[in-house]
Amino acid sequence: MQRRKDEQKNMLSKSQISFVNALHHKKYRKEHNLFIAEGTKLITEFLASDYSIDTVFCISASLSKLGKLPQKVKLFEVTEAELKKISTLTNPQDALALIKIPEETNVSAESFKGKFTLILDGVQDPGNLGTIIRTADWFGFSELVCSVDSVEAYNPKVVQATMGSLARVKVYYQDLKKLLQPTKLPLWGALLDGSNIYETDFGNEGIVILGNEGKGISTEVKDLITAAVTIPRFGGAESLNVGVSAAIFCSEIKRNSTKMFGRKE
Amino acid sequence: MQRRKDEQKNMLSKSQISFVNALHHKKYRKEHNLFIAEGTKLITEFLASDYSIDTVFCISASLSKLGKLPQKVKLFEVTEAELKKISTLTNPQDALALIKIPEETNVSAESFKGKFTLILDGVQDPGNLGTIIRTADWFGFSELVCSVDSVEAYNPKVVQATMGSLARVKVYYQDLKKLLQPTKLPLWGALLDGSNIYETDFGNEGIVILGNEGKGISTEVKDLITAAVTIPRFGGAESLNVGVSAAIFCSEIKRNSTKMFGRKE
Repeated sequence: MQRRKDEQKNMLSKSQISFVNALHHKKYRKEHNLFIAEGTKLITEFLASDYSIDTVFCISASLSKLGKLPQKVKLFEVTEAELKKISTLTNPQDALALIKIPEETNVSAESFKGKFTLILDGVQDPGNLGTIIRTADWFGFSELVCSVDSVEAYNPKVVQATMGSLARVKVYYQDLKKLLQPTKLPLWGALLDGSNIYETDFGNEGIVILGNEGKGISTEVKDLITAAVTIPRFGGAESLNVGVSAAIFCSEIKRNSTKMFGRKE
Repeated sequence: MQRRKDEQKNMLSKSQISFVNALHHKKYRKEHNLFIAEGTKLITEFLASDYSIDTVFCISASLSKLGKLPQKVKLFEVTEAELKKISTLTNPQDALALIKIPEETNVSAESFKGKFTLILDGVQDPGNLGTIIRTADWFGFSELVCSVDSVEAYNPKVVQATMGSLARVKVYYQDLKKLLQPTKLPLWGALLDGSNIYETDFGNEGIVILGNEGKGISTEVKDLITAAVTIPRFGGAESLNVGVSAAIFCSEIKRNSTKMFGRKE
Protein backbone atom coordinates (compact mmCIF):
# COMPACT_ATOMS: atom_id res chain seq x y z
CA MET A 1 0.00 0.00 0.00
CA GLN A 2 1.35 3.41 -0.93
CA ARG A 3 1.13 6.29 1.48
CA ARG A 4 1.13 9.98 0.69
CA LYS A 5 4.05 11.88 2.14
CA ASP A 6 2.05 13.95 4.64
CA GLU A 7 0.47 10.80 6.04
CA GLN A 8 3.81 9.16 6.41
CA LYS A 9 4.92 12.05 8.56
CA ASN A 10 2.26 11.15 11.12
CA MET A 11 2.99 7.44 11.24
CA LEU A 12 2.74 5.87 14.64
CA SER A 13 5.95 4.41 15.96
CA LYS A 14 6.19 0.74 16.87
CA SER A 15 6.55 1.66 20.51
CA GLN A 16 3.38 3.79 20.42
CA ILE A 17 1.47 0.88 18.88
CA SER A 18 2.70 -1.59 21.45
CA PHE A 19 2.04 0.86 24.29
CA VAL A 20 -1.63 1.26 23.29
CA ASN A 21 -2.02 -2.48 22.68
CA ALA A 22 -0.67 -3.18 26.17
CA LEU A 23 -3.54 -1.05 27.52
CA HIS A 24 -5.99 -3.60 26.06
CA HIS A 25 -5.01 -5.60 29.16
CA LYS A 26 -5.99 -4.86 32.75
CA LYS A 27 -2.46 -5.35 34.13
CA TYR A 28 -1.05 -2.52 31.97
CA ARG A 29 -4.06 -0.25 32.50
CA LYS A 30 -3.35 -0.51 36.24
CA GLU A 31 0.37 0.04 35.71
CA HIS A 32 -0.02 3.14 33.52
CA ASN A 33 -3.30 4.40 35.02
CA LEU A 34 -4.76 4.82 31.56
CA PHE A 35 -7.80 3.35 29.78
CA ILE A 36 -9.04 3.37 26.19
CA ALA A 37 -12.19 4.98 24.78
CA GLU A 38 -12.96 4.81 21.05
CA GLY A 39 -14.96 7.00 18.70
CA THR A 40 -15.15 10.81 18.62
CA LYS A 41 -18.70 10.74 20.04
CA LEU A 42 -17.61 8.80 23.12
CA ILE A 43 -14.39 10.82 23.49
CA THR A 44 -16.29 14.13 23.50
CA GLU A 45 -18.38 12.84 26.44
CA PHE A 46 -15.17 12.32 28.42
CA LEU A 47 -13.82 15.70 27.26
CA ALA A 48 -16.95 17.29 28.74
CA SER A 49 -16.44 15.51 32.08
CA ASP A 50 -13.95 15.59 34.98
CA TYR A 51 -11.86 12.88 33.32
CA SER A 52 -8.41 13.92 32.14
CA ILE A 53 -7.65 12.98 28.52
CA ASP A 54 -3.99 12.10 27.95
CA THR A 55 -3.77 11.31 24.22
CA VAL A 56 -6.11 11.24 21.20
CA PHE A 57 -5.41 9.36 17.96
CA CYS A 58 -7.86 10.60 15.34
CA ILE A 59 -8.34 10.21 11.59
CA SER A 60 -8.06 13.46 9.63
CA ALA A 61 -11.70 13.50 8.50
CA SER A 62 -12.96 13.45 12.10
CA LEU A 63 -10.63 15.98 13.71
CA SER A 64 -13.28 18.70 13.60
CA LYS A 65 -15.71 16.51 15.59
CA LEU A 66 -13.42 16.73 18.62
CA GLY A 67 -13.77 20.51 18.90
CA LYS A 68 -11.01 22.52 20.55
CA LEU A 69 -8.92 20.18 22.73
CA PRO A 70 -7.35 21.31 26.03
CA GLN A 71 -3.68 22.16 25.44
CA LYS A 72 -2.31 19.32 27.54
CA VAL A 73 -3.96 16.68 25.32
CA LYS A 74 -1.47 14.99 22.96
CA LEU A 75 -3.12 14.73 19.55
CA PHE A 76 -1.97 12.39 16.76
CA GLU A 77 -3.52 12.42 13.32
CA VAL A 78 -3.62 8.82 12.10
CA THR A 79 -4.78 6.86 9.08
CA GLU A 80 -7.57 4.28 9.32
CA ALA A 81 -4.94 1.57 8.85
CA GLU A 82 -2.98 2.90 11.84
CA LEU A 83 -6.11 3.14 13.96
CA LYS A 84 -6.85 -0.50 13.20
CA LYS A 85 -3.44 -1.44 14.67
CA ILE A 86 -4.25 0.04 18.09
CA SER A 87 -8.03 -0.45 18.28
CA THR A 88 -9.77 -2.90 20.63
CA LEU A 89 -12.66 -3.18 18.15
CA THR A 90 -13.13 -5.49 15.17
CA ASN A 91 -14.46 -2.49 13.25
CA PRO A 92 -12.53 0.51 14.56
CA GLN A 93 -14.27 3.87 14.83
CA ASP A 94 -12.74 7.24 13.89
CA ALA A 95 -10.62 7.91 16.97
CA LEU A 96 -9.06 6.35 20.07
CA ALA A 97 -8.27 8.17 23.30
CA LEU A 98 -6.11 7.30 26.28
CA ILE A 99 -7.78 8.62 29.41
CA LYS A 100 -6.44 8.80 32.96
CA ILE A 101 -8.00 6.36 35.43
CA PRO A 102 -9.14 8.50 38.38
CA GLU A 103 -7.64 7.79 41.78
CA GLU A 104 -9.58 5.09 43.62
CA THR A 105 -11.75 6.46 46.38
CA ASN A 106 -14.23 4.87 48.73
CA VAL A 107 -17.77 5.90 49.47
CA SER A 108 -19.56 5.49 52.80
CA ALA A 109 -23.16 4.35 53.17
CA GLU A 110 -23.76 7.62 55.04
CA SER A 111 -23.71 9.40 51.67
CA PHE A 112 -26.54 7.20 50.34
CA LYS A 113 -29.16 8.97 52.50
CA GLY A 114 -32.04 10.65 50.68
CA LYS A 115 -31.45 8.88 47.36
CA PHE A 116 -31.34 5.50 45.64
CA THR A 117 -28.09 3.60 45.09
CA LEU A 118 -27.37 0.61 42.89
CA ILE A 119 -24.90 -2.04 44.04
CA LEU A 120 -23.50 -4.95 42.00
CA ASP A 121 -22.16 -8.04 43.74
CA GLY A 122 -19.80 -9.95 41.42
CA VAL A 123 -21.10 -9.01 37.95
CA GLN A 124 -18.55 -10.51 35.52
CA ASP A 125 -19.67 -9.73 31.98
CA PRO A 126 -18.28 -6.44 30.58
CA GLY A 127 -21.32 -5.93 28.34
CA ASN A 128 -23.62 -6.30 31.35
CA LEU A 129 -21.67 -3.78 33.46
CA GLY A 130 -21.52 -1.32 30.56
CA THR A 131 -25.26 -1.58 29.95
CA ILE A 132 -25.99 -1.15 33.67
CA ILE A 133 -23.85 2.03 33.83
CA ARG A 134 -25.74 3.39 30.78
CA THR A 135 -29.11 2.50 32.33
CA ALA A 136 -28.12 4.00 35.71
CA ASP A 137 -27.20 7.22 33.91
CA TRP A 138 -30.56 7.34 32.08
CA PHE A 139 -32.47 6.94 35.34
CA GLY A 140 -30.36 9.54 37.16
CA PHE A 141 -28.31 7.29 39.45
CA SER A 142 -25.02 9.21 39.76
CA GLU A 143 -23.00 6.38 41.25
CA LEU A 144 -22.67 2.62 41.27
CA VAL A 145 -20.84 0.46 43.81
CA CYS A 146 -19.30 -2.87 42.73
CA SER A 147 -17.83 -5.63 44.88
CA VAL A 148 -14.07 -5.92 44.43
CA ASP A 149 -14.45 -9.17 42.43
CA SER A 150 -16.66 -7.49 39.78
CA VAL A 151 -15.44 -6.81 36.25
CA GLU A 152 -13.31 -3.64 35.91
CA ALA A 153 -15.18 -0.53 34.70
CA TYR A 154 -12.18 0.49 32.54
CA ASN A 155 -12.23 -2.73 30.52
CA PRO A 156 -12.62 -1.48 26.90
CA LYS A 157 -15.80 -3.55 26.40
CA VAL A 158 -17.37 -1.90 29.45
CA VAL A 159 -16.28 1.58 28.35
CA GLN A 160 -17.76 1.16 24.85
CA ALA A 161 -21.02 -0.40 26.14
CA THR A 162 -21.62 2.58 28.46
CA MET A 163 -21.97 4.80 25.33
CA GLY A 164 -20.42 7.67 27.30
CA SER A 165 -22.33 7.19 30.55
CA LEU A 166 -19.09 6.22 32.32
CA ALA A 167 -18.17 9.92 31.99
CA ARG A 168 -21.13 10.74 34.28
CA VAL A 169 -21.67 7.75 36.59
CA LYS A 170 -19.00 7.28 39.26
CA VAL A 171 -18.13 3.60 39.83
CA TYR A 172 -16.71 2.51 43.20
CA TYR A 173 -15.10 -0.85 44.02
CA GLN A 174 -15.16 -1.84 47.66
CA ASP A 175 -15.89 -4.48 50.27
CA LEU A 176 -19.71 -4.64 50.30
CA LYS A 177 -20.02 -6.21 53.74
CA LYS A 178 -17.96 -3.44 55.35
CA LEU A 179 -19.85 -0.80 53.35
CA LEU A 180 -23.36 -2.06 54.09
CA GLN A 181 -23.13 -3.45 57.62
CA PRO A 182 -23.39 -0.06 59.41
CA THR A 183 -26.28 1.38 57.38
CA LYS A 184 -29.89 1.64 58.55
CA LEU A 185 -31.17 2.28 55.00
CA PRO A 186 -33.44 -0.32 53.34
CA LEU A 187 -31.32 -2.94 51.53
CA TRP A 188 -33.35 -4.54 48.72
CA GLY A 189 -31.90 -7.66 47.14
CA ALA A 190 -32.95 -8.79 43.65
CA LEU A 191 -33.82 -12.40 44.44
CA LEU A 192 -36.16 -15.04 43.03
CA ASP A 193 -38.28 -15.63 46.13
CA GLY A 194 -39.01 -12.13 47.38
CA SER A 195 -41.99 -9.79 47.40
CA ASN A 196 -43.46 -8.46 44.14
CA ILE A 197 -41.44 -5.47 42.86
CA TYR A 198 -44.62 -3.83 41.51
CA GLU A 199 -46.17 -3.86 44.97
CA THR A 200 -43.03 -2.71 46.80
CA ASP A 201 -43.07 0.79 48.25
CA PHE A 202 -39.54 2.07 47.67
CA GLY A 203 -40.12 5.29 49.63
CA ASN A 204 -37.50 7.92 48.88
CA GLU A 205 -34.18 6.28 49.76
CA GLY A 206 -32.49 2.92 49.78
CA ILE A 207 -30.03 0.52 48.22
CA VAL A 208 -30.71 -2.12 45.54
CA ILE A 209 -28.31 -5.06 45.25
CA LEU A 210 -27.99 -7.28 42.18
CA GLY A 211 -25.80 -10.38 42.05
CA ASN A 212 -23.50 -12.35 39.77
CA GLU A 213 -24.83 -13.72 36.44
CA GLY A 214 -24.82 -17.33 37.57
CA LYS A 215 -24.49 -17.38 41.35
CA GLY A 216 -26.58 -14.35 42.30
CA ILE A 217 -25.85 -12.39 45.47
CA SER A 218 -23.08 -13.77 47.73
CA THR A 219 -24.07 -15.25 51.07
CA GLU A 220 -22.35 -12.60 53.18
CA VAL A 221 -24.17 -9.81 51.33
CA LYS A 222 -27.48 -11.70 51.26
CA ASP A 223 -27.36 -11.85 55.08
CA LEU A 224 -27.51 -8.04 55.21
CA ILE A 225 -30.56 -7.62 52.94
CA THR A 226 -33.66 -6.22 54.63
CA ALA A 227 -36.11 -7.26 51.88
CA ALA A 228 -35.91 -9.72 48.99
CA VAL A 229 -37.65 -8.26 45.94
CA THR A 230 -38.69 -10.21 42.83
CA ILE A 231 -39.69 -9.31 39.28
CA PRO A 232 -42.77 -11.54 38.77
CA ARG A 233 -42.40 -14.24 36.15
CA PHE A 234 -45.22 -14.82 33.66
CA GLY A 235 -43.52 -17.35 31.35
CA GLY A 236 -40.89 -20.07 31.09
CA ALA A 237 -37.45 -18.46 31.46
CA GLU A 238 -35.48 -19.50 34.54
CA SER A 239 -33.98 -16.08 35.14
CA LEU A 240 -33.43 -12.65 33.64
CA ASN A 241 -30.18 -11.17 32.37
CA VAL A 242 -28.65 -9.03 35.18
CA GLY A 243 -28.63 -5.92 32.96
CA VAL A 244 -32.35 -6.44 32.36
CA SER A 245 -33.08 -6.94 36.07
CA ALA A 246 -31.09 -3.81 36.94
CA ALA A 247 -33.08 -1.83 34.35
CA ILE A 248 -36.43 -2.99 35.69
CA PHE A 249 -35.34 -2.11 39.25
CA CYS A 250 -34.18 1.37 38.17
CA SER A 251 -37.42 1.90 36.23
CA GLU A 252 -39.68 0.71 39.06
CA ILE A 253 -37.84 2.73 41.71
CA LYS A 254 -38.16 5.90 39.65
CA ARG A 255 -41.81 5.24 38.75
CA ASN A 256 -42.68 4.44 42.35
CA SER A 257 -40.75 7.25 44.03
CA THR A 258 -41.99 9.89 41.57
CA LYS A 259 -45.59 8.65 42.06
CA MET A 260 -46.21 7.73 38.43
CA PHE A 261 -48.81 5.12 39.20
CA GLY A 262 -50.73 5.26 35.92
CA ARG A 263 -53.88 4.06 37.63
CA LYS A 264 -57.24 4.61 36.03
CA GLU A 265 -59.78 5.61 38.68
CA MET B 1 -1.00 -35.28 24.42
CA GLN B 2 -1.66 -38.99 24.84
CA ARG B 3 -5.13 -40.37 24.39
CA ARG B 4 -6.56 -43.51 25.92
CA LYS B 5 -7.61 -46.14 23.42
CA ASP B 6 -11.36 -45.89 24.05
CA GLU B 7 -11.27 -42.14 23.53
CA GLN B 8 -9.42 -42.56 20.29
CA LYS B 9 -12.22 -44.79 19.08
CA ASN B 10 -14.65 -41.87 19.32
CA MET B 11 -12.47 -39.35 17.54
CA LEU B 12 -14.32 -36.97 15.29
CA SER B 13 -13.44 -37.17 11.63
CA LYS B 14 -12.03 -34.17 9.80
CA SER B 15 -15.19 -33.94 7.73
CA GLN B 16 -17.38 -33.88 10.88
CA ILE B 17 -15.27 -31.07 12.30
CA SER B 18 -15.44 -29.00 9.12
CA PHE B 19 -19.19 -29.67 8.79
CA VAL B 20 -19.90 -28.28 12.27
CA ASN B 21 -17.52 -25.36 11.75
CA ALA B 22 -19.35 -24.45 8.55
CA LEU B 23 -22.52 -24.11 10.65
CA HIS B 24 -20.86 -21.26 12.54
CA HIS B 25 -21.79 -19.27 9.43
CA LYS B 26 -25.27 -18.19 8.37
CA LYS B 27 -24.84 -19.32 4.75
CA TYR B 28 -24.26 -22.95 5.75
CA ARG B 29 -26.93 -22.91 8.45
CA LYS B 30 -29.43 -21.94 5.71
CA GLU B 31 -28.01 -24.57 3.34
CA HIS B 32 -28.18 -27.44 5.86
CA ASN B 33 -31.14 -26.16 7.89
CA LEU B 34 -29.24 -26.75 11.10
CA PHE B 35 -28.14 -24.51 13.97
CA ILE B 36 -25.83 -24.97 16.95
CA ALA B 37 -26.72 -24.95 20.66
CA GLU B 38 -24.05 -25.55 23.31
CA GLY B 39 -24.12 -26.90 26.84
CA THR B 40 -26.23 -29.78 28.20
CA LYS B 41 -28.49 -27.36 30.09
CA LEU B 42 -29.40 -25.48 26.91
CA ILE B 43 -29.68 -28.69 24.87
CA THR B 44 -32.16 -30.21 27.34
CA GLU B 45 -34.40 -27.16 26.88
CA PHE B 46 -34.53 -27.88 23.14
CA LEU B 47 -35.04 -31.61 23.81
CA ALA B 48 -38.13 -30.68 25.87
CA SER B 49 -39.51 -28.54 23.03
CA ASP B 50 -40.91 -29.05 19.51
CA TYR B 51 -37.45 -28.60 18.02
CA SER B 52 -35.92 -31.66 16.38
CA ILE B 53 -32.38 -32.48 17.53
CA ASP B 54 -30.20 -33.96 14.80
CA THR B 55 -26.85 -34.63 16.50
CA VAL B 56 -25.33 -34.24 19.97
CA PHE B 57 -21.58 -34.18 20.69
CA CYS B 58 -21.11 -34.64 24.43
CA ILE B 59 -18.18 -35.22 26.79
CA SER B 60 -18.37 -38.52 28.69
CA ALA B 61 -18.78 -36.94 32.11
CA SER B 62 -21.94 -35.07 31.04
CA LEU B 63 -23.76 -37.82 29.11
CA SER B 64 -26.07 -38.52 32.05
CA LYS B 65 -27.22 -34.88 32.10
CA LEU B 66 -28.87 -35.34 28.71
CA GLY B 67 -31.29 -37.99 29.98
CA LYS B 68 -32.69 -40.55 27.55
CA LEU B 69 -32.35 -39.20 24.01
CA PRO B 70 -34.93 -39.90 21.29
CA GLN B 71 -33.69 -42.75 19.07
CA LYS B 72 -33.26 -40.63 15.96
CA VAL B 73 -30.69 -38.35 17.67
CA LYS B 74 -27.11 -39.14 16.59
CA LEU B 75 -24.94 -39.12 19.71
CA PHE B 76 -21.14 -38.77 19.68
CA GLU B 77 -19.06 -39.05 22.82
CA VAL B 78 -16.20 -36.57 22.48
CA THR B 79 -13.21 -35.37 24.46
CA GLU B 80 -12.95 -31.77 25.66
CA ALA B 81 -10.20 -31.21 23.08
CA GLU B 82 -12.53 -32.40 20.32
CA LEU B 83 -15.37 -30.23 21.56
CA LYS B 84 -13.04 -27.22 21.43
CA LYS B 85 -12.48 -27.90 17.72
CA ILE B 86 -16.17 -27.53 16.86
CA SER B 87 -17.35 -25.03 19.49
CA THR B 88 -18.40 -21.44 18.73
CA LEU B 89 -17.35 -20.43 22.25
CA THR B 90 -13.97 -19.30 23.58
CA ASN B 91 -14.62 -21.50 26.60
CA PRO B 92 -16.59 -24.50 25.32
CA GLN B 93 -19.23 -26.06 27.54
CA ASP B 94 -19.83 -29.81 27.94
CA ALA B 95 -21.82 -30.53 24.77
CA LEU B 96 -22.79 -29.19 21.36
CA ALA B 97 -25.98 -30.04 19.48
CA LEU B 98 -27.03 -29.60 15.88
CA ILE B 99 -30.72 -28.73 15.80
CA LYS B 100 -33.06 -28.51 12.82
CA ILE B 101 -34.15 -24.98 11.84
CA PRO B 102 -37.97 -25.11 11.71
CA GLU B 103 -39.65 -24.31 8.41
CA GLU B 104 -40.25 -20.58 8.02
CA THR B 105 -43.85 -19.60 8.56
CA ASN B 106 -45.63 -16.28 8.64
CA VAL B 107 -47.97 -14.93 11.25
CA SER B 108 -50.91 -12.59 10.60
CA ALA B 109 -51.81 -9.62 12.78
CA GLU B 110 -55.23 -11.26 13.19
CA SER B 111 -53.61 -13.72 15.61
CA PHE B 112 -52.38 -10.87 17.84
CA LYS B 113 -55.88 -10.14 19.18
CA GLY B 114 -56.40 -10.46 22.92
CA LYS B 115 -52.70 -10.44 23.79
CA PHE B 116 -49.51 -8.39 23.63
CA THR B 117 -46.94 -8.85 20.88
CA LEU B 118 -43.37 -7.62 20.64
CA ILE B 119 -41.94 -6.54 17.28
CA LEU B 120 -38.31 -5.69 16.46
CA ASP B 121 -37.48 -3.46 13.49
CA GLY B 122 -33.87 -3.98 12.43
CA VAL B 123 -32.17 -5.09 15.67
CA GLN B 124 -28.62 -6.08 14.64
CA ASP B 125 -26.72 -7.18 17.74
CA PRO B 126 -26.99 -10.93 18.48
CA GLY B 127 -26.61 -10.36 22.23
CA ASN B 128 -29.49 -7.88 22.18
CA LEU B 129 -31.81 -10.24 20.27
CA GLY B 130 -30.89 -13.14 22.56
CA THR B 131 -31.56 -11.09 25.68
CA ILE B 132 -34.89 -9.87 24.26
CA ILE B 133 -36.01 -13.46 23.53
CA ARG B 134 -35.08 -14.43 27.12
CA THR B 135 -36.93 -11.42 28.54
CA ALA B 136 -39.99 -12.07 26.33
CA ASP B 137 -40.08 -15.64 27.65
CA TRP B 138 -39.89 -14.46 31.29
CA PHE B 139 -42.81 -12.10 30.78
CA GLY B 140 -44.91 -14.71 28.95
CA PHE B 141 -44.72 -13.38 25.39
CA SER B 142 -44.87 -16.57 23.30
CA GLU B 143 -43.77 -15.00 20.04
CA LEU B 144 -41.62 -12.25 18.60
CA VAL B 145 -41.74 -10.77 15.09
CA CYS B 146 -38.57 -9.36 13.51
CA SER B 147 -38.18 -7.36 10.31
CA VAL B 148 -36.38 -9.32 7.59
CA ASP B 149 -33.22 -7.22 8.01
CA SER B 150 -32.88 -8.12 11.72
CA VAL B 151 -30.12 -10.42 13.01
CA GLU B 152 -30.87 -14.15 12.55
CA ALA B 153 -32.30 -15.92 15.62
CA TYR B 154 -30.17 -19.03 14.87
CA ASN B 155 -26.89 -17.13 15.05
CA PRO B 156 -24.95 -19.02 17.79
CA LYS B 157 -24.52 -15.83 19.87
CA VAL B 158 -28.30 -15.30 19.85
CA VAL B 159 -28.99 -18.95 20.73
CA GLN B 160 -26.58 -18.90 23.69
CA ALA B 161 -27.85 -15.51 24.97
CA THR B 162 -31.46 -16.78 25.04
CA MET B 163 -30.40 -19.28 27.76
CA GLY B 164 -32.93 -21.75 26.36
CA SER B 165 -35.80 -19.33 25.82
CA LEU B 166 -35.51 -19.79 22.05
CA ALA B 167 -36.97 -23.26 22.66
CA ARG B 168 -40.19 -21.57 23.90
CA VAL B 169 -40.50 -18.23 22.08
CA LYS B 170 -41.37 -18.50 18.37
CA VAL B 171 -39.48 -15.94 16.25
CA TYR B 172 -40.97 -14.82 12.92
CA TYR B 173 -39.21 -12.82 10.19
CA GLN B 174 -41.46 -10.89 7.87
CA ASP B 175 -42.27 -7.63 6.14
CA LEU B 176 -43.50 -5.40 8.97
CA LYS B 177 -45.38 -2.95 6.77
CA LYS B 178 -47.42 -5.73 5.16
CA LEU B 179 -47.98 -7.37 8.55
CA LEU B 180 -49.07 -4.25 10.41
CA GLN B 181 -50.92 -2.19 7.82
CA PRO B 182 -54.23 -4.11 8.07
CA THR B 183 -54.47 -4.31 11.87
CA LYS B 184 -56.74 -2.16 14.05
CA LEU B 185 -54.82 -3.07 17.23
CA PRO B 186 -52.91 -0.32 19.09
CA LEU B 187 -49.37 -0.02 17.68
CA TRP B 188 -47.06 1.47 20.33
CA GLY B 189 -43.64 2.62 19.14
CA ALA B 190 -40.71 2.98 21.57
CA LEU B 191 -39.64 6.51 20.65
CA LEU B 192 -37.91 9.40 22.42
CA ASP B 193 -40.69 11.98 22.11
CA GLY B 194 -43.81 10.04 23.05
CA SER B 195 -46.15 9.85 26.02
CA ASN B 196 -44.89 8.62 29.41
CA ILE B 197 -44.85 4.80 29.52
CA TYR B 198 -45.81 4.83 33.22
CA GLU B 199 -48.98 6.78 32.45
CA THR B 200 -49.91 4.73 29.37
CA ASP B 201 -52.96 2.49 29.66
CA PHE B 202 -51.99 -0.61 27.69
CA GLY B 203 -55.46 -2.19 28.03
CA ASN B 204 -55.42 -5.91 27.27
CA GLU B 205 -54.06 -6.16 23.73
CA GLY B 206 -51.64 -4.47 21.38
CA ILE B 207 -48.30 -4.43 19.64
CA VAL B 208 -45.04 -2.84 20.85
CA ILE B 209 -42.39 -1.95 18.27
CA LEU B 210 -38.70 -1.35 19.07
CA GLY B 211 -36.17 -0.20 16.51
CA ASN B 212 -32.57 -0.61 15.45
CA GLU B 213 -29.72 0.13 17.93
CA GLY B 214 -28.60 3.29 16.13
CA LYS B 215 -31.35 4.32 13.76
CA GLY B 216 -34.44 3.41 15.74
CA ILE B 217 -37.69 2.47 13.99
CA SER B 218 -37.69 2.73 10.18
CA THR B 219 -39.79 5.49 8.58
CA GLU B 220 -42.27 3.14 6.90
CA VAL B 221 -43.00 1.37 10.19
CA LYS B 222 -43.04 4.63 12.19
CA ASP B 223 -45.83 5.86 9.90
CA LEU B 224 -48.08 3.03 11.10
CA ILE B 225 -47.62 3.65 14.83
CA THR B 226 -50.76 4.78 16.68
CA ALA B 227 -48.93 6.08 19.77
CA ALA B 228 -45.31 6.98 20.51
CA VAL B 229 -44.36 5.84 24.02
CA THR B 230 -41.28 6.96 25.97
CA ILE B 231 -39.42 5.71 29.03
CA PRO B 232 -38.87 8.95 30.98
CA ARG B 233 -35.26 10.04 31.33
CA PHE B 234 -34.01 11.27 34.71
CA GLY B 235 -30.28 11.58 33.93
CA GLY B 236 -27.71 12.19 31.22
CA ALA B 237 -27.67 9.16 28.88
CA GLU B 238 -28.77 9.85 25.31
CA SER B 239 -30.60 6.57 24.89
CA LEU B 240 -31.14 3.13 26.38
CA ASN B 241 -29.86 -0.19 25.09
CA VAL B 242 -32.65 -1.82 23.00
CA GLY B 243 -32.64 -4.93 25.20
CA VAL B 244 -33.18 -2.69 28.22
CA SER B 245 -36.00 -0.75 26.52
CA ALA B 246 -37.69 -4.00 25.48
CA ALA B 247 -37.47 -5.25 29.07
CA ILE B 248 -39.02 -2.10 30.52
CA PHE B 249 -41.84 -2.27 27.96
CA CYS B 250 -42.52 -5.94 28.76
CA SER B 251 -42.44 -5.19 32.48
CA GLU B 252 -44.73 -2.15 32.25
CA ILE B 253 -47.23 -3.91 29.97
CA LYS B 254 -47.49 -6.83 32.37
CA ARG B 255 -47.70 -4.61 35.45
CA ASN B 256 -50.31 -2.40 33.85
CA SER B 257 -52.47 -5.11 32.30
CA THR B 258 -52.46 -7.24 35.46
CA LYS B 259 -53.39 -4.17 37.54
CA MET B 260 -50.32 -4.22 39.78
CA PHE B 261 -50.35 -0.53 40.52
CA GLY B 262 -48.57 -0.61 43.86
CA ARG B 263 -50.31 2.56 44.98
CA LYS B 264 -50.54 3.41 48.64
CA GLU B 265 -53.99 4.80 49.45
